[in-house]
Amino acid sequence: MKVGILGNGQLARMLALAGKPLGLDFTFYDPNPTGCANVLGEFIEAEFTDQQRLETFVDSVDVVTLENENIPEPALRAVPSEKLFPPAVAVLKSQDRLLEKQFLQQLDIPLAHYYALEDERDLVEAVRQEAGELIIKTRRLGYDGRGQAHVETPDEASAAWRELSQVPLVAEARVAFEREISLISVRSRSGEIRFYPITENTHHKGILHTSIVRCDDPMQALAEEYATRLMTGLQYVGVLGFEFFQLEDRLLANEYAPRVHNTGHWTIDGAEISQFENHLRAVLGWPLGATRAHSPSIMCNVIGSFPHKTELAVIPGAHIHDYQKETRPLRKIGHVTLCSQDPSALQAGHARLRALVRD
Amino acid sequence: MKVGILGNGQLARMLALAGKPLGLDFTFYDPNPTGCANVLGEFIEAEFTDQQRLETFVDSVDVVTLENENIPEPALRAVPSEKLFPPAVAVLKSQDRLLEKQFLQQLDIPLAHYYALEDERDLVEAVRQEAGELIIKTRRLGYDGRGQAHVETPDEASAAWRELSQVPLVAEARVAFEREISLISVRSRSGEIRFYPITENTHHKGILHTSIVRCDDPMQALAEEYATRLMTGLQYVGVLGFEFFQLEDRLLANEYAPRVHNTGHWTIDGAEISQFENHLRAVLGWPLGATRAHSPSIMCNVIGSFPHKTELAVIPGAHIHDYQKETRPLRKIGHVTLCSQDPSALQAGHARLRALVRD
Repeated sequence: MKVGILGNGQLARMLALAGKPLGLDFTFYDPNPTGCANVLGEFIEAEFTDQQRLETFVDSVDVVTLENENIPEPALRAVPSEKLFPPAVAVLKSQDRLLEKQFLQQLDIPLAHYYALEDERDLVEAVRQEAGELIIKTRRLGYDGRGQAHVETPDEASAAWRELSQVPLVAEARVAFEREISLISVRSRSGEIRFYPITENTHHKGILHTSIVRCDDPMQALAEEYATRLMTGLQYVGVLGFEFFQLEDRLLANEYAPRVHNTGHWTIDGAEISQFENHLRAVLGWPLGATRAHSPSIMCNVIGSFPHKTELAVIPGAHIHDYQKETRPLRKIGHVTLCSQDPSALQAGHARLRALVRD
Repeated sequence: MKVGILGNGQLARMLALAGKPLGLDFTFYDPNPTGCANVLGEFIEAEFTDQQRLETFVDSVDVVTLENENIPEPALRAVPSEKLFPPAVAVLKSQDRLLEKQFLQQLDIPLAHYYALEDERDLVEAVRQEAGELIIKTRRLGYDGRGQAHVETPDEASAAWRELSQVPLVAEARVAFEREISLISVRSRSGEIRFYPITENTHHKGILHTSIVRCDDPMQALAEEYATRLMTGLQYVGVLGFEFFQLEDRLLANEYAPRVHNTGHWTIDGAEISQFENHLRAVLGWPLGATRAHSPSIMCNVIGSFPHKTELAVIPGAHIHDYQKETRPLRKIGHVTLCSQDPSALQAGHARLRALVRD
């Protein structure tokens, strides 16, 4: 069986590392020839709009999936729907924050106030109406905090508009959340859904820094209810990452990602079957695997440059993941997962790890 | 860092799959161009006696290891000792059953009676002396029960001698053992040794069929004592597999393998750090990782042909490992490891798995 992946970054790489033991082969399709997945399969270097190369790619594989929700629409449309998982609609909605929010609202999944912005007056009006801080985001292509501005007054609104309004924007009310959590779910072709335990996430400079697995968390059931609604509504197939803000006993949806997700990387080392293997099982029409955490786990991203491997390896329970990407400030180049059935060892390891992976 | 591996079969493949997340690159050296590891790194197709290609190989990597104890001596001698782990002496002794037994005996590690056989009279005399069944084995290159004969009478001895004596032979007393166990150990460059829990092994048609992990087994300590003596005696670096026969509360050494070992494959899915990662850590001079089983595990080899993946994937806790080798009768082409913290689920899964992987 050959799996085609649109994209060739670390998520594609980890999908392939999970798929080789299953006997799968991989072809990656991307305009960037330096992707860190390429060493694990065939690689087609071509634009996402090149219909001829896309056709060759699609014909050469049994199934197509993606590692990046910002794959341009022409590439998604080039794949027959019976060969593309997750479905194009799930990807296209996630590419546009406004469509995504409207869809979540339709499904009665709570989310922060948001405002569609057609012109500067919409923004000034939104600032008045909200009477609190707004986050202005590009509707498309922002990630890891890029392309955002925080505004609270009409003057700030005008400045932000001038800076960002070359592209369509949306405004969200800033939520004074207590914590940020995410739920990794997987839905099979037959509609079965399984959930990993939620993680509690912290960010640093707008980039995910740490995900701590919370088994038996009181918010697990509510998050699962919302994810079920979303995945069923999208007729989704594959792994989906769903981020929430928690305020008291409520969850507000932040965003979803139609792919394997950074807050699920701990599952490689800490769960029975990883998010990567379960994504492959789902898109291939195989039965899903167990999502239980066999060990409490904490994942820290490695940003910018890699600490010495020997200093990481000496931490008990540390699992090193180096994506073999070129180092660059603020770039995710790896992660380290700590797993231990001994809570105090886990905490001690986390303290040592934190000291090493600070950007 | 680039790791050179002599050999390119499934053990090299699993070493590379463990090493990619550590940020390692691999070069495989083997005369056989179809090895299943080749897709995971560079490949040099050359004979183990080709000094020029060996030199190029050695110069292109940071460290050299092996996946097969039968690598010819010229290839081992081509690697400077400070770059070859485990050391050549450990490999060369394991290539010759007589040298291996003599060395174990020197170290006071108990083993079955054995007889060096120079000519047919030695064999007939051994049969008389033993007054029980002897197993005649080639001193070199036998594996998975190939190149062996069982004899109990002088007539059988003569027949076996005629059949096998083109090559040097050794005779071992057949041991009426209660069970066969093995211990996977790893020794670092600094001399630290760690042990995985032992496994209890069963064979079918002379090939390993099942390894069941036995945490807290009463024979663990004795096996560790013998392995410590052996690894220290060899100034060993890397993972070593050591097989024993158990009779009441005694262990008799069967043989050791100076490499990652089939009875340690369960560690990929069931142990904190796998035998493959720990072998790489050892040969690179890194700190060793934890060897604890996070989940009780059972591994079954897949011999000859692969069952349907969906039938395997549906078994809770099953981890599929397809080496992507051509199918062939009696060939090891994969394994499946069952892991579960629930003993009854593990037993139920084992019954289902056994029904699927019977050759």
